Amino acid sequence: MTKCTTIALLSGGIDSATAAAIAKKNGDKVIGLSFNYGQRHLRELKAACDIAAYLRLSEHQIININLAAWGGSSLTDSQYSLPTQGVIEGVIPNTYVPGRNTVFIAIGLSLAEARGASQLVLGINAMDYSGYPDCRPDYLDAYQSLANLSSKSSREGHGIKLLAPLLHWEKVHIVQEALKLGIPIEKTWSCYNGQEKACGICDSCRIRDAALKKAGRGDLCSDKQT
Amino acid sequence: MTKCTTIALLSGGIDSATAAAIAKKNGDKVIGLSFNYGQRHLRELKAACDIAAYLRLSEHQIININLAAWGGSSLTDSQYSLPTQGVIEGVIPNTYVPGRNTVFIAIGLSLAEARGASQLVLGINAMDYSGYPDCRPDYLDAYQSLANLSSKSSREGHGIKLLAPLLHWEKVHIVQEALKLGIPIEKTWSCYNGQEKACGICDSCRIRDAALKKAGRGDLCSDKQT
Repeated sequence: MTKCTTIALLSGGIDSATAAAIAKKNGDKVIGLSFNYGQRHLRELKAACDIAAYLRLSEHQIININLAAWGGSSLTDSQYSLPTQGVIEGVIPNTYVPGRNTVFIAIGLSLAEARGASQLVLGINAMDYSGYPDCRPDYLDAYQSLANLSSKSSREGHGIKLLAPLLHWEKVHIVQEALKLGIPIEKTWSCYNGQEKACGICDSCRIRDAALKKAGRGDLCSDKQT
Repeated sequence: MTKCTTIALLSGGIDSATAAAIAKKNGDKVIGLSFNYGQRHLRELKAACDIAAYLRLSEHQIININLAAWGGSSLTDSQYSLPTQGVIEGVIPNTYVPGRNTVFIAIGLSLAEARGASQLVLGINAMDYSGYPDCRPDYLDAYQSLANLSSKSSREGHGIKLLAPLLHWEKVHIVQEALKLGIPIEKTWSCYNGQEKACGICDSCRIRDAALKKAGRGDLCSDKQT
């Protein structure tokens, strides 16, 4: 049986690692894709490489695309402070990077087409990042409609499929699935800061810690500071 | 009156120069955006810079995004030969770069959002490149639907508008408009090869020459070889 080839966008965090592991478990040939996009630190790229190696992906591409050239986010412009106040319903935090997912998925579609992959798997999650415009289900639906038309193969009716298996999952559910799939959580990186140890206080550490706690895990970012 | 800010994708060719000049003529504040995407040569980027300077754009960003990392096109992989046989109805030539327009427009949307621009103007033309999936009107319509959802401002109902004023124009019409707008045609670059002079035989030179001839211009790419 010919295996399906799937591109997995890997950020180095738990969500994208879980999405990639789900594709692997399905028996897909998985190619990883990560981005050096001018983010505050490259610690997360090291994590992405570790996860790609752990999952024995057939290939792992790391692409430079300098979105820091125009900034507009605390993740690409150090003039902004990183948020630590927790997620506020209806407010888009300054960690939102203009157009980031749109750019990343577009590059993923390019790689998919060049490699003959029929799927792109994303760790996008609408629950914790409900404020981000590019994590919403209707955004993904619209991207799917575009992907249905954008490639050479789309002319023969074969668009590239966008998969977001975690879209509606609670974070604790993602952690539980990651553990079930054997993902080495300690190799993933969520912290917005790029120090040797996770800061434990940024919103990303808080969301991660809350989920790990609920899942009964002890290795919290906040513990590392004590 | 507050001027509208428009991002203009500039390839260095006549089409994108004309689209940018139309936006300038409308009184928009125009920011240019060009790509070093691993194309065969950088001659066209020099042309893009010349056009940006000529049009006195308020800013011109040149972004590296190495689509040659996975190739799949004669423009990003020198193993392919450049086509010289002329456009064949219904056939996608090997100059098609997987996902290129999808990636370029995505990066344009990112810049637009960061700069508060409300429009993106493209030189896309469906007449001469009818085979390219990413030059078709329905592709652009689908991208507009995505752009209507993808940015922060889209949550308040202000999506970024994609403009493709040349979409249905014959090439000779584009050349006539370029001349009317005072674009220095000799500063633009269309040739797929990156030699000092245009080759005059690749499909891009042929399409350009045919339009220039029809418009009564004498400075043809093919003449430069004699």
